[in-house]
Amino acid sequence: MGPAPAVAAIRLAVRKTLSGLAPGGLVLVACSGGADSIALACATAFVAPRLSLRFGGLTVDHNLQEGSAAQAERVVRFLASLGFDPVESLSVRVEGHGGPEAAARVARYGALDAAAERLGAATVLLGHTRDDQAETVLLGLARGSGARSLAGMPAQAGRYARPFLDLPRATTVAASAAEGFEPWDDPHNADPAYTRSRVRHAAIPALSAALGPGIPEALARTAKMLREDTEALDAWAAREFDRLLEPFGDCDLSHYLDVSELSVLPTAVRRRVLRLAALRAGCPGSDLAAVHIEELDRLLTDWRGQGPLHLPSAVAAARRYGKLAFERSGALRRGGADRSDPGQPAEDPAPAGLLMPA
Amino acid sequence: MGPAPAVAAIRLAVRKTLSGLAPGGLVLVACSGGADSIALACATAFVAPRLSLRFGGLTVDHNLQEGSAAQAERVVRFLASLGFDPVESLSVRVEGHGGPEAAARVARYGALDAAAERLGAATVLLGHTRDDQAETVLLGLARGSGARSLAGMPAQAGRYARPFLDLPRATTVAASAAEGFEPWDDPHNADPAYTRSRVRHAAIPALSAALGPGIPEALARTAKMLREDTEALDAWAAREFDRLLEPFGDCDLSHYLDVSELSVLPTAVRRRVLRLAALRAGCPGSDLAAVHIEELDRLLTDWRGQGPLHLPSAVAAARRYGKLAFERSGALRRGGADRSDPGQPAEDPAPAGLLMPA
Repeated sequence: MGPAPAVAAIRLAVRKTLSGLAPGGLVLVACSGGADSIALACATAFVAPRLSLRFGGLTVDHNLQEGSAAQAERVVRFLASLGFDPVESLSVRVEGHGGPEAAARVARYGALDAAAERLGAATVLLGHTRDDQAETVLLGLARGSGARSLAGMPAQAGRYARPFLDLPRATTVAASAAEGFEPWDDPHNADPAYTRSRVRHAAIPALSAALGPGIPEALARTAKMLREDTEALDAWAAREFDRLLEPFGDCDLSHYLDVSELSVLPTAVRRRVLRLAALRAGCPGSDLAAVHIEELDRLLTDWRGQGPLHLPSAVAAARRYGKLAFERSGALRRGGADRSDPGQPAEDPAPAGLLMPA
Repeated sequence: MGPAPAVAAIRLAVRKTLSGLAPGGLVLVACSGGADSIALACATAFVAPRLSLRFGGLTVDHNLQEGSAAQAERVVRFLASLGFDPVESLSVRVEGHGGPEAAARVARYGALDAAAERLGAATVLLGHTRDDQAETVLLGLARGSGARSLAGMPAQAGRYARPFLDLPRATTVAASAAEGFEPWDDPHNADPAYTRSRVRHAAIPALSAALGPGIPEALARTAKMLREDTEALDAWAAREFDRLLEPFGDCDLSHYLDVSELSVLPTAVRRRVLRLAALRAGCPGSDLAAVHIEELDRLLTDWRGQGPLHLPSAVAAARRYGKLAFERSGALRRGGADRSDPGQPAEDPAPAGLLMPA
């Protein structure tokens, strides 16, 4: 008699992910003790030795709730009992801005990165399922910044891989039960103080009630397609940016882009080129919002003699003699904006407040 | 004293939409008698004469509920009282497949199209708001077929224009109240038997409760960006399809695409080219689902000697000597699939059931 169907499904998913790795490499599993990561650990302990791979386990103690160290210890014992070696509990301090979930994520990936580096891991497996993906898509929807924020989590990115991204959570729950392990449910997952918990327990059920079953699948499929769209458009924009980029001045960050060349690009590509230009000039991607790109685009498509646009990290963009110039604000203030751009309609002067001081 | 802010907002939106039209043209307003279309009628009656445009009104009687003819008559009197001329009530019969909402939509646009044609309208204005757009995006989400189904309604498409697509419904409600008109609420809008009604009254509030306010704006902004992405990718795919298309046989529909050329395209572009190829071969777009494109793509990316793939409307696609052939199934059955394609791995033969009969 073969394994239970859910167990067969998780093993197959892990095998697909690991099959390309060179024998002897180290696979690390990130395990919280929840059903998803218990299933991931069980499947990896079965598959890895059959592919001549070593397998180790990591658990992160976020130190956010009473008894978290004891829970981490339970996970360590569980992993060791399955033959994982090495097994480590990584204790982190969650701090910084962006909300408790974002701060916990930063701390967690920082610890996983460091451990993977130190242990020389070939890959780090994460237990996210299709349901997690659906929740991530809805969380991205609230940002409203287009395909990039709806594309969810990648199945593979750098050293991280998510073998279960096409499997429903129900499969991991069934598999961990079939393997005889009782998952530990993080109380945060049911705490409505957390956005993801509200999405999981209220938003997805409400969407399913309104639109019919199959919403998590539809969201996950959407994420995959939008990721493909984003990859294609990002590649197109990168080609155009390389072609149009004209560095100037003695600073590596300052550059021009030709307005007429930019203007003939499709909107979706043009906006991505503008984003690359702002990044190149020194804007951090995390600070660059859709509204910044919108305003940058207005220097091209709604030119009324506006003064320089001030972007995060003291980067400024201004139109000058048929070019869009990106540089540090100080430098640009000395340069002055282009008031005589031929694209500026004479009958519709810019409001005085938007013009540069003489 | 100027108009109420909501009235100013709806007039500005209609003015922006109509400003490009040649004087003397006829603008038609589609009016159900709801707040959105009352606001649209009021704004058009104010703006159109100031732009030297004629303005007429249409209302559609769907004959789906008791008293619908009387309600249509009330809308006709309302429009006439605002100076609309001509004003017509279009009586339609809702029938056909795809659910009651889809059937009503087909009947409605059929009647509007015919009236616009007959009256020689320069444009037909529709009262959809940002909230309608948000609902449309969520309805598209359930289909899970990527950016195309999430891109919502266009602000401008053919003869139709939607001036209020960036305005919240609250603005049209406030404006129709400020103009002194009591809107008629279609009981279907509150009937949970209709999907859109469930989305409006349950799904959007649940999403807002989970993710915070601003969900309709985020959904509408997402739709706009995904529409731009789709336009750019569709244009790219159309260029590639034109370049790769090799017609064959004596039927205009049959054609080849080169497998190696297709395979180097980014996934998002390749799938769109495959969609164009299926359309060209005679598949109706409405019958072509994501799963068909997925299977077509497998003939390229997961080639194991599969037999022809049968698509809607008796179109078939098969791999043949390094080409992907699209044609009517009958023709293809005579041709046979390519079992000796060099891309087929010898050690991994296709299951017998997938091979062509000899």
